[in-house]
Parts: sequence; structure tokens; C-alpha cells
Amino acid sequence: MPKKIKARASDPGPRIVIENITPQVDAGRFPIKRVIGEQVVVRADVFADGHDEVAVFLLYRECGRQDWREVPMKFLNNDAWVGSFAIEREKDYFYTVRGYVSEFSSWRHDLKKKTDAGRDVAVDLKIGSAILKATAGRCSKPEAAQLLKWARILAAPKDIKSAIALAMGDELAAIMQANLDPEKSATHEPQLRVLVERGRALFSSWYEFFPRSWSPKPGRHGTFKDCERILPEIARLGFNVIYLPPIHPIGKTFRKGKNNSVKCAPTDPGSPWAVGSAEGGHKAVNPRLGTLKDFREFVAHARKHSLEVALDIAFQCSPDHPYMKEHPDWFTWRPDGTVQYAENPPKKYEDIVHFNFDTADRKGLWEELKGIFIFWIEQGVKIFRVDNPHTKPFVFWDWLIAEVRKEHPDVIFLSEAFTRPKVMYRLAKAGFSQSYTYFTWRNTKQEFVDYLTELTQTDVAEFFRPNFWPNTPDILPEHLQVGGRTAFAMRAVMAATLSSNYGIYGPAFELCVNTPIQGREEYLDAEKYEIKSWDWDGPGNIKDLLARLNAIRRANPCLQMTRNIRFLDINNDQMLAYYKATGDYSDIIIVVVSLDPRNVQSGWLEIPIGELGIDKERPFMAQDLLSDQKFIWQGEKNFIELDPARSPAHIIRVSKQLRREQDFDYFL
Amino acid sequence: MPKKIKARASDPGPRIVIENITPQVDAGRFPIKRVIGEQVVVRADVFADGHDEVAVFLLYRECGRQDWREVPMKFLNNDAWVGSFAIEREKDYFYTVRGYVSEFSSWRHDLKKKTDAGRDVAVDLKIGSAILKATAGRCSKPEAAQLLKWARILAAPKDIKSAIALAMGDELAAIMQANLDPEKSATHEPQLRVLVERGRALFSSWYEFFPRSWSPKPGRHGTFKDCERILPEIARLGFNVIYLPPIHPIGKTFRKGKNNSVKCAPTDPGSPWAVGSAEGGHKAVNPRLGTLKDFREFVAHARKHSLEVALDIAFQCSPDHPYMKEHPDWFTWRPDGTVQYAENPPKKYEDIVHFNFDTADRKGLWEELKGIFIFWIEQGVKIFRVDNPHTKPFVFWDWLIAEVRKEHPDVIFLSEAFTRPKVMYRLAKAGFSQSYTYFTWRNTKQEFVDYLTELTQTDVAEFFRPNFWPNTPDILPEHLQVGGRTAFAMRAVMAATLSSNYGIYGPAFELCVNTPIQGREEYLDAEKYEIKSWDWDGPGNIKDLLARLNAIRRANPCLQMTRNIRFLDINNDQMLAYYKATGDYSDIIIVVVSLDPRNVQSGWLEIPIGELGIDKERPFMAQDLLSDQKFIWQGEKNFIELDPARSPAHIIRVSKQLRREQDFDYFL
Repeated sequence: MPKKIKARASDPGPRIVIENITPQVDAGRFPIKRVIGEQVVVRADVFADGHDEVAVFLLYRECGRQDWREVPMKFLNNDAWVGSFAIEREKDYFYTVRGYVSEFSSWRHDLKKKTDAGRDVAVDLKIGSAILKATAGRCSKPEAAQLLKWARILAAPKDIKSAIALAMGDELAAIMQANLDPEKSATHEPQLRVLVERGRALFSSWYEFFPRSWSPKPGRHGTFKDCERILPEIARLGFNVIYLPPIHPIGKTFRKGKNNSVKCAPTDPGSPWAVGSAEGGHKAVNPRLGTLKDFREFVAHARKHSLEVALDIAFQCSPDHPYMKEHPDWFTWRPDGTVQYAENPPKKYEDIVHFNFDTADRKGLWEELKGIFIFWIEQGVKIFRVDNPHTKPFVFWDWLIAEVRKEHPDVIFLSEAFTRPKVMYRLAKAGFSQSYTYFTWRNTKQEFVDYLTELTQTDVAEFFRPNFWPNTPDILPEHLQVGGRTAFAMRAVMAATLSSNYGIYGPAFELCVNTPIQGREEYLDAEKYEIKSWDWDGPGNIKDLLARLNAIRRANPCLQMTRNIRFLDINNDQMLAYYKATGDYSDIIIVVVSLDPRNVQSGWLEIPIGELGIDKERPFMAQDLLSDQKFIWQGEKNFIELDPARSPAHIIRVSKQLRREQDFDYFL
Repeated sequence: MPKKIKARASDPGPRIVIENITPQVDAGRFPIKRVIGEQVVVRADVFADGHDEVAVFLLYRECGRQDWREVPMKFLNNDAWVGSFAIEREKDYFYTVRGYVSEFSSWRHDLKKKTDAGRDVAVDLKIGSAILKATAGRCSKPEAAQLLKWARILAAPKDIKSAIALAMGDELAAIMQANLDPEKSATHEPQLRVLVERGRALFSSWYEFFPRSWSPKPGRHGTFKDCERILPEIARLGFNVIYLPPIHPIGKTFRKGKNNSVKCAPTDPGSPWAVGSAEGGHKAVNPRLGTLKDFREFVAHARKHSLEVALDIAFQCSPDHPYMKEHPDWFTWRPDGTVQYAENPPKKYEDIVHFNFDTADRKGLWEELKGIFIFWIEQGVKIFRVDNPHTKPFVFWDWLIAEVRKEHPDVIFLSEAFTRPKVMYRLAKAGFSQSYTYFTWRNTKQEFVDYLTELTQTDVAEFFRPNFWPNTPDILPEHLQVGGRTAFAMRAVMAATLSSNYGIYGPAFELCVNTPIQGREEYLDAEKYEIKSWDWDGPGNIKDLLARLNAIRRANPCLQMTRNIRFLDINNDQMLAYYKATGDYSDIIIVVVSLDPRNVQSGWLEIPIGELGIDKERPFMAQDLLSDQKFIWQGEKNFIELDPARSPAHIIRVSKQLRREQDFDYFL
């Protein structure tokens, strides 16, 4: 927090002002987020009264180290300064800004103006000499000796011209800049924190599936062993996270039947989110999926295919959960002696019981819930999708995520909070690495532009990492219900290129399953309540598109970030155009995607060639990575046509260096 | 400052979140500013996890009182709440926001949904009964008795329908709302402060003049006594502050002659900003103006004309100032034994010496400077225009203004900082009541719109009060040099209606004096360096316009505020249109001013009749208060023509209630 004003003449605080540091979240109460390799670009307004010159430094350090590293900040304009540092280690970082009133720079600045005007500067050189002497008092010995020598020259120069040259020299300036007067400095408080995570927090491609549907024998309950079979194909599709709905024993009391029916047949497997039965709770594996050992082996197999297993943590219980007997005080009991089940009146969810986070045994409950994460971390899981975190106290997540990260900074948390924006943002501030979003319900061009702008070009970008899902087991949005296969392809392209984190619920997605419960955005015969048998290579599937999209994402670092998105003008409201580039513009991808799954759409795309460093006068190559078509483009306006029957999008890699012979040959 | 996260399961802090409170300045480090009678409208995002309902209150109190007054805040949308309070006393105020998780409201909300769905709610009523009992434990005795009685009814209702009616009743809700559970509440920290000033801090009309130029005998040095003579005319012009350049003895060493010449004739009076001579310093009166007693009498006379005298405080010394001998350690001395005079290399200002605010005797210097304000306050002066405050440490002003306001909260400070925007804003944060601005150098329509929007529609409006000056003794801007009398009229209208605080340097302004030093924005033969003799009623003067403008300002409360400005569309870039209204829209003024002093300009003005509460279908009266012309307008579009030969502006009062007979008579 900034210091309170000290209104005392005896100790009024420094003359220098440091204001408006960015990035920061809620005046430094919450950290900004970065992954290893990312930059932190810091801006601040720094100034002093009068005409004194100031010197400004960006200070940063890893958590656990006390010594700051200092980077000189560059003056921009209007009292604003900028500097940056790179995140090099998987440790949280701290940063702040320090400013000095630089007596030496101010003196040198005036000296130059006076000598330029031909004024006598003998006395000024003496003043400079005194500044050097004072600085010598806080230098290393060799520097001090050098400064004192120079101070003598300035005090009694034999030759005024060479004394002035000495005063203006870089060598003197370097020593003076390195030994500024700490008494004339201010350092911004509080120090600002960077929550640092590994790269997958920023770049991940999730594939969600229900293991129980992958038995080779239709109708039989699938196991982890069965699922080892499908790992090579998921790897071929190019995903890097496989996410399993809860794998725990499923309650029997009030178990839901097909289509969420309150009537349940004896063979119905139940919803995995009704966690816990006599067979165990959140630390147990549903015996029908296999053993804990089977699970560990599945995780190890997945790792061989470069696939990381993510688990779903749903902090809620079926009425049969062992906690109900072991810790009745963790739940809310009604005056009639029954437990308070979940409800959203008039709807009842009698198969689900919520924890009472305000229980008198809060310490016991909270520690146990933390223990659930620790247990699965010990089984090899480092990514968790957290179910409905917004129905638990924010302060619980503040505590839990900090606690888990203390020992396991490599753990990634995805917040499944489909709720009001400020609630979603508060959870991100609590430390969730990624979050579900409203992408699923955005439809028009303006909606996409507005939403992505909010997510990537405002303060939100500093703490909230979107993860774009076109579908989930709970959500079959209307545009997928009515748009056919093309709509699935459009959404896949957008999810995979708008956001560096995205995921699908498969194989319903790649098989373009689009039959809803009448009038709702839910799947008919949802997999949540039954065992499915998928014809994974069935007709009309878009597996090859997904494989290509994921390959493009892997090959192009600019698609492994989200904050770098910039929208482009195209004169057609049914076409969305944007580009992403790496910081050095060595990798540039332009995406043009149609929002109309039925008709051919076309328009003139405006390419910001100046921004991209493209020469107006020279042709450049644009290669559509989806079709492998190459185009030779020149200038700012280029015509784009998208035919949904062929491909609803271009993902264009821009090559500024045209290897003329070869590329023209290809084109001609 | 917001509290740091407590990451402890044992005491995690409240479940409720309070974020994004507005207004606040730099996370509460600096106060917002208001005058008596103004409202403070507070918004905040307040929410809890889950589906619990929250109750939100705005808390406020006067400085010095410990007990908060509470106002329920109203829910807007997207988790945002709003509430307000009025400033009733000339005391600083504190405010903050408190939120509660309301178990009762959540319960009642669910109960309603369940009864609407026809569900059995017997158990729910028992749960409600328990909530009432718990609440009774923290109520007044009569309330507790009432709640316990109701609790018994809910627990064992004879008639379920009347029990439900009781649960839904307003009487119960009122008691429950008044006795929310403090354990389930959070109060935002830090408390936010309102710096409260008297009305003149927001509404003032300044007339600056040099007393020495007002002798009835041309060439003789004018006195305070002489100036008593002109008070009735200044009062007739409608100003309410008369501001005098420094009135202290003027130094002789290096005194500047006419036109800032280094050659000074024996009769040249010198610049009043070269403060101090053998005759005294900052607490003395220049004997040529009279005695201290004369000054006090002048102040008293002015008061009789409802004119307040403002003094210019210039913290700098002539080389002859008594401080130079009494406190040589308050100044900077050069190695050659001479004092460091003011300079902006290569320019030298040898008639001015600056204080060294970092002197070892800082306490002595700072207290003495504070003493200068106190001295003049004791002579009856409560408004100070501070010269060049940006060349003194910000922390000095933080301290000085707080110190002076402790004893004299009615003192008003005007910051004369023509410098970089962030420096000007930091001085305003230090407590300056008003500030000079860039108004003087804004010319195009877009420049005015952008600048006024920054000043009135951003956070800046909370701490920075503009005071618009079309000219000063130092500044004769280019548009006044070339635009003739019309340009002066245009600027007068804009200054007086764009900003509730404005001022002119007269009589140069109302006499339309516009001869510059060749190629500069300075007056030729500036009054700073010589005694003038003014023909105040000379040809072409705009005194009547000023008198009318000030009368319009006095009669229309909407012109006595600045934050209420809203720009209007008019399809001509040479015409600027805006309106101001009081909060209840009882007073509405539309201003249309031409930016072209030479040609007739016209355009279609769009009037936001919906916003102003005007009926689309009915005519309304628009009266130009400058010309007294009345127009009957209807609908959104109205044609406006401005002829600089007649009047460069309309100041239109909108009357929604048309007294038909009379007004139509007038018009027809």
C-alpha cells in the first residue's frame, strides 16, 4: 500500500513522487500472473518538484531473495517511465520502482546549457566538484579515488575546455549514476508480486472425456486400463492435457438416472459429481474404473505421450459419502434432522450435499480439503479443474491455493466458475491459473471484440487467464445445435486461436454431436448420466481439423499467448479477423474466421503492415496453414473469401522474407 | 489501504468482498474534494460467494466524530451498489462501505420461491425461526421480544399461510435489516476522506489588479486607500474575489526595469514578485501602498462590497530580503561566496533568490513560511494564490496545507502551477483548492472537449478544481492578440461558463489590451514592471458583458459547479456547445459559443431532451440570457447562428414550463 502522508516538517518524506505503477492489481493486494519466459513491462509516473532531473529504476527479485536487481527505466513522455524484466525461474517475483533526484544530472544539464550559451562556468565547475566529492563518500574505493581525482580537476581546471569535456563524459556519468544518493530517493510501497507458473498455465490444449465410456465392449463400464488404448490417438490430435470428470465412487442415495431423471435404473452409473459412497470419498477411485494403482499407471502412460492428466475436484458429497458419518459437523442439518441438500429453489439436488464452510471445525474441514489436493498431487496429478469454486468462500481459495503452491508451485488450477464476471475475476485473483469464460455464449463480431478486449487489453489480463471451451458435458450452446459441422469447425478455430488455453469435451465435440434436450442448451442423453459407446472415427468427424489446429498452435509461439491478440478491420460483420505476433514479430499469424456457417462471405482485410514491419512496396507471403495454400500479398488491403463448404477460416502465417524464386514458382 | 490477505484457516477474514469503491484518489492516499452542500455519490462492487444475499451500507462521519451514519446502498447491476450522502458541515468527512451476508434475506428469498412452487415449507419456517432467535440475541429489548414472539409462531404455526405472510412482511424485514450479524460483515479499509471547503472553493470569480496603478493622479504610485475607490465598480461587475499581486516591499538589487529590462530607471517600481527589501519581507506591506492598517481597512471595505481579498504568496526573495541576513542558511551559496540566484539556463533571474527547502534548518524555514500564511490570515485574508508551488517540494505543501487547515479550514489555496499535468495534479492532491489550467492555450473544439472531459469526467474531477484564466499579467495568448474584441468576449463567455471558478487580469482584459512583445505571448510594457494609468471606461471595453456574465453565474446554480458539464453535438467545428444542469434539472443552461471571431457560423444543435426531461411533443422556451431574446423551441434539433459582430455566444436558459400566453405573446 502507498504510505500515508507524513505531515511533519522534521521528516516529510522524499521529494520524489512515484505514482500510477502498472501492472498492479487492486493497489497491490493481489499478484499479477506470468509464466516462465514472459516479460513484465512496468510503467510508472515519476517526477520531483522544480526542474531537478530524476533517475528511475525498476527493482525486482525472486521470492526468498532479499537483494534487488535494478534496471534503469527509460523516460517516455509526460513524466512516464518504462522498464522490464524477464521471468527466468519458477518462483514468484517481487518488483517495485525506485526514483532518485539526481543532483549530478541536473547540474550537468544546466552546465551544458550554460556552456552552449558561452557563459563563464568556473563557479559551476566548482559546484560540480563538490557533488563528486560528496558522491565519493558512498562509493567503492577505486571509484572514490577516481571521483576525487576528477573533483580536483573540476575545482581548479588547468584547461576549462577539457574540464567541461570531463564533466560531460560517459565515464563520469556511469559512476555517478551507479552511486546516486539514497537520501534523495523514494521506493514505491508496497512491493508488487508476480505469481509465476510453468508454461502450461498459459499454453494448454485440453481434452475432456469420461473414462467409463471407453470399454472396448459396448455397454460395459470402461476402466483406466481401457483408456490407455486411446492415449496415442489423443496425442495424435495434439492435445497436451487430458481431463477426467471426478473418478471417485459415486453415491447411490438419490442417484440420478438417464437425462438427470430422479428415477434411476439399477444399471445406471450415476453422475460422477455425486462424490462418495461406502466405497470411499474424494481420495478413493471408483472401483469400476480400476484401482489407485491403475490410475497411477494411466497417468504414467499418458506422460509417455506428453499428455498430462487433470482431475476434477468437486467439493461436494453424495449423501453416502463417508464424511457424512465421520464429520456430521461439516454439514448443515435441518430442524427435522435431515441434512441440507443442495437446492436452487424450487429445484432440489438431493444427490448432492454441500459442506458448511463456516463449521465450528473450520480448521478440520479446510485442512482435509487441502489434503485432497495433496493426495492427488502425490499420485502424479499437477493440474486440477475445480468444480463450482464460486460456491465456496473466496478466502478459502486464497488460503488453499497459497498453501498448495508453497510446496507445489507447479500445480495448475482451472476455475470452473460460470457465474457473474466480478465473481469470476475475484477467483482469478485468489490464484486460479485459468478460468472458464463466456466464450461459449458469444456470437456476434462485436461481442467477440468487446469480450476479448476486456480479457486481454484491460487490467483483467494481468490476473485472469481465459480457457475457451466451445462445449462441456453440461453445455451444448445453441450455435452448435443449429450450425452443423461447420459451426463446430468455426468454434474450434476460434477457441484454439483466440485463446492460448482451450479445451473440448470429446468425442461429442469432434463427432459434432448436436442433439439437445428440447429448448435447452444441454445434451440429450448426456454422458453425465450414462455410459456411452463412441464411434470415434464416425462420418463427419473433425478430428483432422483438431490435429491440424493443435499442430499449428505448437509450431507458432505467437498462438501460445493470449494478451497479444489485436483485432483487424474487415468490412463484413460476418467475418472476424485478428492477428497475434511474438514480441519480436518473428512469428505472425493472421486469423480470419467466418461467423456464418451457411453462406459464402467475403471482405477486404486491412493488414497493419507498418505495425508488423512489412514493407509497403514489397510483396510478402501469406500461407494458409489450414489449407496449405500460399498467397502473394502486397500492401494493406487484401481480399478474403470464406466458403463454409470448404473451410470457414484462414489461419495465415505471414512471411516477411519472401524466398522469391521458390515461392513465386509455387504460386504461378 | 486494503488489508493483506490473511491466509489462515483459523481466521480467514470475511466471506464478503468489497472492491472498486469510487470515488477514491490513489487507493485512498489522498482525499476527494467537496464543498458544503455537495453530494458524495459512492459506488462499490460488493458480493459474496454462492447464492447468499448481501446487504450493503454506505458509512460516513464527520472528522472528529467516531460514530458512523449508515445509508443503505441500492443494488444497480453486475454486483455494483450505489449510495450517497450530503456534505452538511464545513468539516472533513470520512466514508467507507460495509457489506453483510444476510442470512435472513437469503432464507426469505428461497422461501418465496418454494411457496410460489407450492412446496411444503414447514421445515423452512423452523429454520427461519432459528434465524430470528439468533438475531434477537443482538437486538434492543423490545425488538428482541418481538422477534422471539415471531420466532415461536414460525416454529409452530397454527396457520401456515399467515406464518408465511409474517415471514414476508416488511415489519420483520425492517428489524432484521437493522440487526444484521456483524460477524458476517466486512468494512472496507482504509476509510476514505473528503476534504471539505466552503462554497467559494467551487464558485469564485476573480478580478486581479495591481493596486499601484490606481492612483487618481497619473504616474503616481497608487495606494490601498486609492483602491477603495474602485471597489464599487468591481462589485458592479459581479466579481467576488479581488486578487492582488504581492504587496510586500520590492527589492532594489538587480531590480528589473520596464519590459523586464536589466536596466532599471530610478523611478521604476520593480516587479512585486521580487519580495523583500530593507523595509521588510513577506510579512510587511510596501510603504508606497500604505500601512498594514491601510491594508486591513481595504480588506474590510472590500468585504462590505461582498468582495474577498486574495493575496499572492510567492515563496522567493529579492537579494535585499531581511531573511538573507537573518537566515543565510535558508539559501544556497556558491563556492565563490555569492548566493545562488534563480536561473533557467541560460536565463538568469538575479533579482530572485530561492529558498533551499533541504536546509539543515528545515524546521525553522518551514515553520516561518507557515507563519507567513498565519500572519495574513490574522489580517483578514482567507484566500491565497500561491506562486509557482511546483518549484517547492510536494511534501512541503502536504504539510503546510494540512497545518493551516487545522486551525483555519476556511482558507482557500489557488495553485499557480503552469507546468506538466502530473505535477499540477500532485499539487491538487496536496490540498490546493483550485488550480490554474491549460484553458489559456486550448483553441480547437476537440481540444476543449478533450480537456474538459479529462478535468470533469475522470478521477481528476475528484481532486482538481480548475480555475480558468483567459489572461494573466504574464500571459497574453495568441488568440487574444489576433482576434480583437470578439476574441476577448468569446474567452470571457467560455471561462465563465465552462468552469465555476474563473478569473481575469484586469483592466487589461476588459479593455481588450492585445499588444504583445513581438513574437511572444507576453504583454508589451507589462504592468509587472511599471505603473499604469487605465482609462477603465475606454472605448471597446467589455465591462457590461462581464457584469452580465457574472450576474448570470450568480442567478444560475448550475453554473456554480464544473463537474456537471456535458458537451452537445452541433454540426460545425467552429461552434462549441455544452450544457450544465443542477442535479434535479430545475436549472438548465445551454451554451453555444463560436470559436471564430471573424465570420458568421451556424449549425444544428442537438438537445438531449430526454436527458433534460423535456417533452418531445411540446414547445419549450429558450431564453438567451446575453441578449434577452426568447425562442420557442421544440424537439431535438434547433438551428443556431452566431454573428461575431453582434454576439459570439448564446447562454440559453431552458424553461420546461412554458407560461403559454405570456411567452407566446412576447415571441409573436
